[in-house]
Amino acid sequence: MGEKNSHPTPPSELEWRKIKLLALDVDGVLTDGTIFTGPDGFELKQFSVLDGLGLVCLRKAGVILAVISGRLSAATTSRMTELRFHHIIQGRKDKGTALEELAGQLKLAPEEICYVGDDVIDVPAIRYAGIGITVADGDPLALQWADWTTDRDGGKGAVRQVCDRILESRNHSVLALSHKS
Amino acid sequence: MGEKNSHPTPPSELEWRKIKLLALDVDGVLTDGTIFTGPDGFELKQFSVLDGLGLVCLRKAGVILAVISGRLSAATTSRMTELRFHHIIQGRKDKGTALEELAGQLKLAPEEICYVGDDVIDVPAIRYAGIGITVADGDPLALQWADWTTDRDGGKGAVRQVCDRILESRNHSVLALSHKS
Amino acid sequence: MGEKNSHPTPPSELEWRKIKLLALDVDGVLTDGTIFTGPDGFELKQFSVLDGLGLVCLRKAGVILAVISGRLSAATTSRMTELRFHHIIQGRKDKGTALEELAGQLKLAPEEICYVGDDVIDVPAIRYAGIGITVADGDPLALQWADWTTDRDGGKGAVRQVCDRILESRNHSVLALSHKS
Amino acid sequence: MGEKNSHPTPPSELEWRKIKLLALDVDGVLTDGTIFTGPDGFELKQFSVLDGLGLVCLRKAGVILAVISGRLSAATTSRMTELRFHHIIQGRKDKGTALEELAGQLKLAPEEICYVGDDVIDVPAIRYAGIGITVADGDPLALQWADWTTDRDGGKGAVRQVCDRILESRNHSVLALSHKS
Repeated sequence: MGEKNSHPTPPSELEWRKIKLLALDVDGVLTDGTIFTGPDGFELKQFSVLDGLGLVCLRKAGVILAVISGRLSAATTSRMTELRFHHIIQGRKDKGTALEELAGQLKLAPEEICYVGDDVIDVPAIRYAGIGITVADGDPLALQWADWTTDRDGGKGAVRQVCDRILESRNHSVLALSHKS
Repeated sequence: MGEKNSHPTPPSELEWRKIKLLALDVDGVLTDGTIFTGPDGFELKQFSVLDGLGLVCLRKAGVILAVISGRLSAATTSRMTELRFHHIIQGRKDKGTALEELAGQLKLAPEEICYVGDDVIDVPAIRYAGIGITVADGDPLALQWADWTTDRDGGKGAVRQVCDRILESRNHSVLALSHKS
Repeated sequence: MGEKNSHPTPPSELEWRKIKLLALDVDGVLTDGTIFTGPDGFELKQFSVLDGLGLVCLRKAGVILAVISGRLSAATTSRMTELRFHHIIQGRKDKGTALEELAGQLKLAPEEICYVGDDVIDVPAIRYAGIGITVADGDPLALQWADWTTDRDGGKGAVRQVCDRILESRNHSVLALSHKS
Repeated sequence: MGEKNSHPTPPSELEWRKIKLLALDVDGVLTDGTIFTGPDGFELKQFSVLDGLGLVCLRKAGVILAVISGRLSAATTSRMTELRFHHIIQGRKDKGTALEELAGQLKLAPEEICYVGDDVIDVPAIRYAGIGITVADGDPLALQWADWTTDRDGGKGAVRQVCDRILESRNHSVLALSHKS
C-alpha cells in the first residue's frame, strides 16, 4: 500500500491524467458539513449545482464516480442517483478500507484514484489514493496529508474545482461536455 | 447573430429602455447555487424575497419574464408560478439555443432581451442577449463576457438590482408599482 | 398623521417606554429575506431563536405583537402562532395603510407604535410609527427614514435587539421574564 | 451550590478529565440559532456533522450525553435519537434547575459536569456546571460567566471542539474511536 509522507508535492499533469475513479466523502465535501433534520429522521442536505455540473461532465468524459459516506442518508442516495454515480457506498466510517475494497473490485491501482475528504476519518483514504485531496476548510490532519487542497470550502464548489482540474488534464472542459448527451 | 467582443462597454440608458424580455438562469442567479435535497428527489431551493418584489413590479411594468434552467425542478416551477412568470423553460443546458428559440417565438430582436446567468453554460445566452449580465460571484468566463455585472451575489438580491435598473430606465420604481394591482 | 423628516434623531428613553405595540415585517426582518421553496408551493422560512425568546418575553411584559407581511405564507402563520402573536396580517403590500388600520382598531396613537421593516414598501409604515426601525441590511430608503437601525441583519437577531431595547426602557430583561409563566 | 465569579480561569487538564456528563443547549449551540419553519409546525434544524462525529466518539469513551432545550421540537428528538443521547430534556427554560435535577438523578457533583449554552437563559447552568462553556457567538452575559469559550460559532463545529478537548484529557481521539463499534 503506497502510503505517502505528509506535506507531499502537488500532483503533476501526468498524475492528474491517470485518474480513472473519483471517490468523494459526502458531508463537508459535497456539502458544508451541515444537515437539516426534521421529524422522524427526515433529512435534507445542501448540495452545490456547480459541483453537479462538473460531475455530470466528468462522467461524460469516462471517469468512474463514487461516494463513500460514514453516515446513511436518503438525501445522499437521492442526489447521487440524480447525478448517476456508479458507486454509492454509505455507513462506512472505515473509509480507507472501503476505498481499498472498491479499488479491488474495479481492479484499479492507487495512482488511478482521486479521493476527496474533509475530516480525520478521511485521512486513511486520502493517504491511500494516488491524488488525496481535502477542502479549504478541512480538518488540520486532512490538510497535512492531502496532496492537493481546493481553494473553495466544502459544498461551495470545492468538488467543481477537482472536476475542472481532471477535465483540464484530459483537454476537456465543462463548456464543451455540457452540450454532449 | 449579434455576438459581441468580451469586456464590452456598459449598456446606455437607451439600451436599458429597449428591454422587453428579462430571461434568467435559476441556480446561481435566483439562488446561491445550492439545492436542498431530501429523500426520493424532494428538493427545496432558496429564493430571495427582494428579487421576488422586483420581478412582480417588472411584470406590472409590462416586461416579459422567463427562466431558462439546465435542470428540471418542481421547486422552480412552484416559485416561478407564484411570481407569474410568462415562460418557464427547464432541462435545457443549451441555453443560447433555448433563448434564440424563445426570441423567435416572441418576435424579439437581441437588443430587446436581457439575460442573466452565472456559469460557463450561460455564456452563449449572455453573448446573444442585447444586455448580457452575470452576478458578482459568477464564473470568470461569464464575468469576461457580461455587459454588466451585479454588485450582489446570486440569490442575495442580484436580480433585484437588474429589475431596479430596468424600472429606472422607464421612470418606474418598486415603491410606486408595488401598490398597483 | 405625524410624518417625520428623514434622518431623525434617535428615540429617547421616554419614547421607548411609550411603546404598546410592536409591529414587524416578516421577510428580511424576522428572516434574512430568503424563502425555501419546494414542490406545490411548500415553503420554509428561517427564523431566529434569539428573536423568538425576546418576543415571548415582550408579550409577558404586556406589549402587543403584530406582523404585517406583503406575502401570504403558511410558514409565517406557523411561527407567529407558536410565538402567540396577537395580530397576524398577511398579503398586504400597502403596509402604511395596514398599520394605520390596526392602530385605529387598537385605539393607539403613532407614538405608542414601533414598526420594523427592511424594504422600500415598508417606508410608509416606518414613517407612520412613533419609532420606525430598519435592520442593518435594510434598503437605503428604509435606512434614510428609520428613527433607529439595528446593528444586526434581518433574521440574525435584529428583532431581539429591538425587544431588549423596549424591555430595558421598562426595567425588564429577558433573563428575568423567561422564568415567568 | 458552587457558584463561581465571572471571568474565571480556564479549566485545568485535571478538571477536564473529571467530566462524566456533557449537557448541551440545542439552539445556538448544536445549531446556529435558526430554525426552518413550514406549515402546521413543521420544523427543520441545521446540525453539524462535525459535532455529530465528536459526540458519537465521546459516547464510546463512556461520557453521558444530554440536551436541555427551552423549546420542544421533533427535529431535536430526531437528531439526538440518531446520536443516541442518554437524556433528551425539552421545554425547560429554567435550565439551571433542570441541570441540577439531572445531576441529582445521576448522583453527579457539579465538577463532573460540563454544560454548553449560548443565551442569557443558559447562564445559571453555565455557572452551576464545573466546566461552563459558551460559544464564540454567545450572548455577552454567557461570555462573561463561561469558564471556557469555543473558537467556533454555534452549529459550526463548536461542540466538536468541546468533544475533542474532553477526549484529549482522556488520551482518546476521534480518529481512534471512530473505528470502534
